[in-house]
Amino acid sequence: MTTHAFKPEEFPVLLDWPVQWGDQDLFGHVNNTVYFRWFESSRVEYLNKLGQGKMHEERQIGPILAHVDCNFRRQINYPDTVRLGSRVERIGRTSFKIQHAIWSTTQELQLSADGSSTVVMFDYQAQRPIPIPAEIRALIEVLEGRRFE
Amino acid sequence: MTTHAFKPEEFPVLLDWPVQWGDQDLFGHVNNTVYFRWFESSRVEYLNKLGQGKMHEERQIGPILAHVDCNFRRQINYPDTVRLGSRVERIGRTSFKIQHAIWSTTQELQLSADGSSTVVMFDYQAQRPIPIPAEIRALIEVLEGRRFE
Amino acid sequence: MTTHAFKPEEFPVLLDWPVQWGDQDLFGHVNNTVYFRWFESSRVEYLNKLGQGKMHEERQIGPILAHVDCNFRRQINYPDTVRLGSRVERIGRTSFKIQHAIWSTTQELQLSADGSSTVVMFDYQAQRPIPIPAEIRALIEVLEGRRFE
Amino acid sequence: MTTHAFKPEEFPVLLDWPVQWGDQDLFGHVNNTVYFRWFESSRVEYLNKLGQGKMHEERQIGPILAHVDCNFRRQINYPDTVRLGSRVERIGRTSFKIQHAIWSTTQELQLSADGSSTVVMFDYQAQRPIPIPAEIRALIEVLEGRRFE
Repeated sequence: MTTHAFKPEEFPVLLDWPVQWGDQDLFGHVNNTVYFRWFESSRVEYLNKLGQGKMHEERQIGPILAHVDCNFRRQINYPDTVRLGSRVERIGRTSFKIQHAIWSTTQELQLSADGSSTVVMFDYQAQRPIPIPAEIRALIEVLEGRRFE
Repeated sequence: MTTHAFKPEEFPVLLDWPVQWGDQDLFGHVNNTVYFRWFESSRVEYLNKLGQGKMHEERQIGPILAHVDCNFRRQINYPDTVRLGSRVERIGRTSFKIQHAIWSTTQELQLSADGSSTVVMFDYQAQRPIPIPAEIRALIEVLEGRRFE
Repeated sequence: MTTHAFKPEEFPVLLDWPVQWGDQDLFGHVNNTVYFRWFESSRVEYLNKLGQGKMHEERQIGPILAHVDCNFRRQINYPDTVRLGSRVERIGRTSFKIQHAIWSTTQELQLSADGSSTVVMFDYQAQRPIPIPAEIRALIEVLEGRRFE
Repeated sequence: MTTHAFKPEEFPVLLDWPVQWGDQDLFGHVNNTVYFRWFESSRVEYLNKLGQGKMHEERQIGPILAHVDCNFRRQINYPDTVRLGSRVERIGRTSFKIQHAIWSTTQELQLSADGSSTVVMFDYQAQRPIPIPAEIRALIEVLEGRRFE
């Protein structure tokens, strides 16, 4: 994987987020669990653009997290503001994969970390995965500005 | 990957951990970031058995986290006690990979999640990775009860 | 306030809780927010004994947190196991006050911190405080082994 | 206590902070421990203006947290941005008290919570409290725009 491809302008969903003093652990840099909290905030921001809240309420359908991973590339220190980016990388039959990236503004937007979330579309009443609804696929394609196979 | 291989008795480092009420998120199950906090507790327990604290103090050498991932297989609810297991899966030149597993006691020790951490042996003074010291490799082999290539 | 009165045997609800590596902050001791998470775990344990879950489901009545405070008396370090105690100190018309204490087992059960939570009995449908139900008062008196004015 | 006195313009240190999805607990509002994390961020911001970092490095002198409390006045929901304010309320011989306030921007800057932190000036080498240094007192008086007895 070439990391030079992770540029903020290639991510349709971006959030700027302040680093808290308490995000630091004993080693004086941001603790690894905080990256996953940031991924979550960024993922929720993306999913909200797909209308997840309304779908969940009206039809008991919603995304469930199946997998997350993170590559820690450069330490992040307090104080800083990180830029969080999310984009859909792949759409499967019942799941899709979101790619995440974190850049540090004090480090001139160098890539601090990248990773991914795999979310499964889930029918909470039937308690089983369902095919990605056509309108979700369409909304992702609009956000990403491209077609997925 | 066959998950039937994840049995507590195959993991040399095991911790039992209570689920807190506050570990739950809006969806009523344990939030994904908590799994990474548990992985960390389990990883630190393993690394302490390799004498990481002493090595860090005396020679400024220590493990740095390069990658973490988690597969969420079954939801965990409050109240519960989880069993956390760690074992070394692979030793490379400058890094090694720890495999993690989480079982739920209220779910009769079914596998709730599994994942891995890749830790790089790091020289903090020279600020670069170093080959895994022979004594670390030896201690891992004793703990795991097997030889690594 | 004399702190010598805070003895575990004087608290009807006690929990032993492991300190996690990640509970430490940059200063190498347990971060202040973790104490409030522990108070919460202990408070929920107490409230569960009053049947809060059932009451909330059946009658939409439940306790809401109005105030919390904590006195930090001795630093807590990793590794350790803390003992968390809760007891009701006072019952008002629509609220009651829980007293919390935290002892460190590695420090021979010396008091590490104490504090309190004030919880208001709340009618979620009417969105207003209600008088403490007689059965809640009775259950508290049984737990505490004394009468409240 | 009259809460109408808590107006952002009366606080010399103000921070705007985004509410994260993960700040919510099972009840669908921001969990109580998050308020103490916000107090901490605001307190650190204040203490940094008093030169705490430099003093700690050069003379091993620094503030230690002795007490924190919080009054929860109105629930905070996601999404929102909170405004965090801190001001020194009282200076004692070896400690001072910081007053905190939290306002919700989606609730038109109504007061969501208020509380306080008591910090003790501590000599880490001698391991005992010391009188507030004159330069700290002077810096507080400049920040607050008033004299303290």
